[in-house]
Amino acid sequence: MDQDPAGAPGYDAAVVDLLGVLAYGELTAFIRMAGDCDLAPTLALKTRMGHLATVDFQHYEQLLEHMRERGIDPDAAMAPFVAPFSAFHERTRPRGWLEGLVKAYVGDGIAKDFYKEMSALVDEETRAVMSAALEDAGQADFVVEIVRDTIRSDAAAAGRLALWGRRLLGEALSQAQVVAVERDAMSALLVGGGLDLGEVGRMFSRLTENHQRRMTRMGLDA
Amino acid sequence: MDQDPAGAPGYDAAVVDLLGVLAYGELTAFIRMAGDCDLAPTLALKTRMGHLATVDFQHYEQLLEHMRERGIDPDAAMAPFVAPFSAFHERTRPRGWLEGLVKAYVGDGIAKDFYKEMSALVDEETRAVMSAALEDAGQADFVVEIVRDTIRSDAAAAGRLALWGRRLLGEALSQAQVVAVERDAMSALLVGGGLDLGEVGRMFSRLTENHQRRMTRMGLDA
Repeated sequence: MDQDPAGAPGYDAAVVDLLGVLAYGELTAFIRMAGDCDLAPTLALKTRMGHLATVDFQHYEQLLEHMRERGIDPDAAMAPFVAPFSAFHERTRPRGWLEGLVKAYVGDGIAKDFYKEMSALVDEETRAVMSAALEDAGQADFVVEIVRDTIRSDAAAAGRLALWGRRLLGEALSQAQVVAVERDAMSALLVGGGLDLGEVGRMFSRLTENHQRRMTRMGLDA
Repeated sequence: MDQDPAGAPGYDAAVVDLLGVLAYGELTAFIRMAGDCDLAPTLALKTRMGHLATVDFQHYEQLLEHMRERGIDPDAAMAPFVAPFSAFHERTRPRGWLEGLVKAYVGDGIAKDFYKEMSALVDEETRAVMSAALEDAGQADFVVEIVRDTIRSDAAAAGRLALWGRRLLGEALSQAQVVAVERDAMSALLVGGGLDLGEVGRMFSRLTENHQRRMTRMGLDA
């Protein structure tokens, strides 16, 4: 029990931030993906995209419920993340269905990697609610198939989407950097106390490597 | 059993249409309402709106599943309704959060009234799946409260929203008229065989009366 992270100074503030950023991320992903249903070329694809969106909304509601049970005000917890997420989404508006798809897959992947990194550092109860939100029945896998199919017959799309993937990662890390500096309790959690931008940077490297693996899986240059 | 509607000529085609229009209506309502989350002024309201949207998507998925079980191709069943729904949504783009709210409430109400009208005319199995999609834990009631609060302090909004409500009903009935004429098997279901525009018109009158009741409930002139 002496290893219980819950004992560390600033721990409670870090958990509030963590739950806030996860919840707000799910909410904005839901809104974006539901909007991207409009871009989907077939009803079957609208359905897949809509399903992904509602799964994110369910995770969002689970996170809210958990915050309330824990006496955390969800609005206050999410507030610091409204600006960085809206900056990210403003700068990465998909110009078509394929860009929306790749964004959903890449964004979902980065979010899940971040969940995994952080869930090793929190108490059991928080970890349980994070794992539930992490649950993934491979719903996003259809994206890989569609992107691979498209670029087989369209080399220009492959180049454009590879660039798009790099831009998505760049914008995500740039907003994450802002968050890391401003929310030092959450960043401190990564290193067991005190803000260490070196450790934050190493986490970013791991997120980048996983991102590159996902790009390769879609058949795109990372 | 001689009263079983399933025996009537054209019955199967009518049920395919009915399930198709219900399912596609839920899908487009989901996409619109999720998009309107962006317009909501607070996180709490984004959450309410998002919840309404995902409930509609769950109904949509239930209807798809039922169609597949019954050997109906959902894409083919929904196809005839893509154009009328997109005409309706094109012509009724909310110019702000309040218009989006009123549209969600009015649209949901009209759809539910239509469900109720039609569910009296179908076989038990179809009725069961329609009832599940009708289920309503009063999620849209928060709309009434918000609209009443707003117009108490803003008489101009009351006038504008009353006009907006009339426009929504007009556009909905105009698209429904197109559907009634083009999908005569579904219309025939209303009168037990043969297209009877008089009976369709009487149903429209009932839908209009219920709409007016909902407008009054929001404190708006119908």
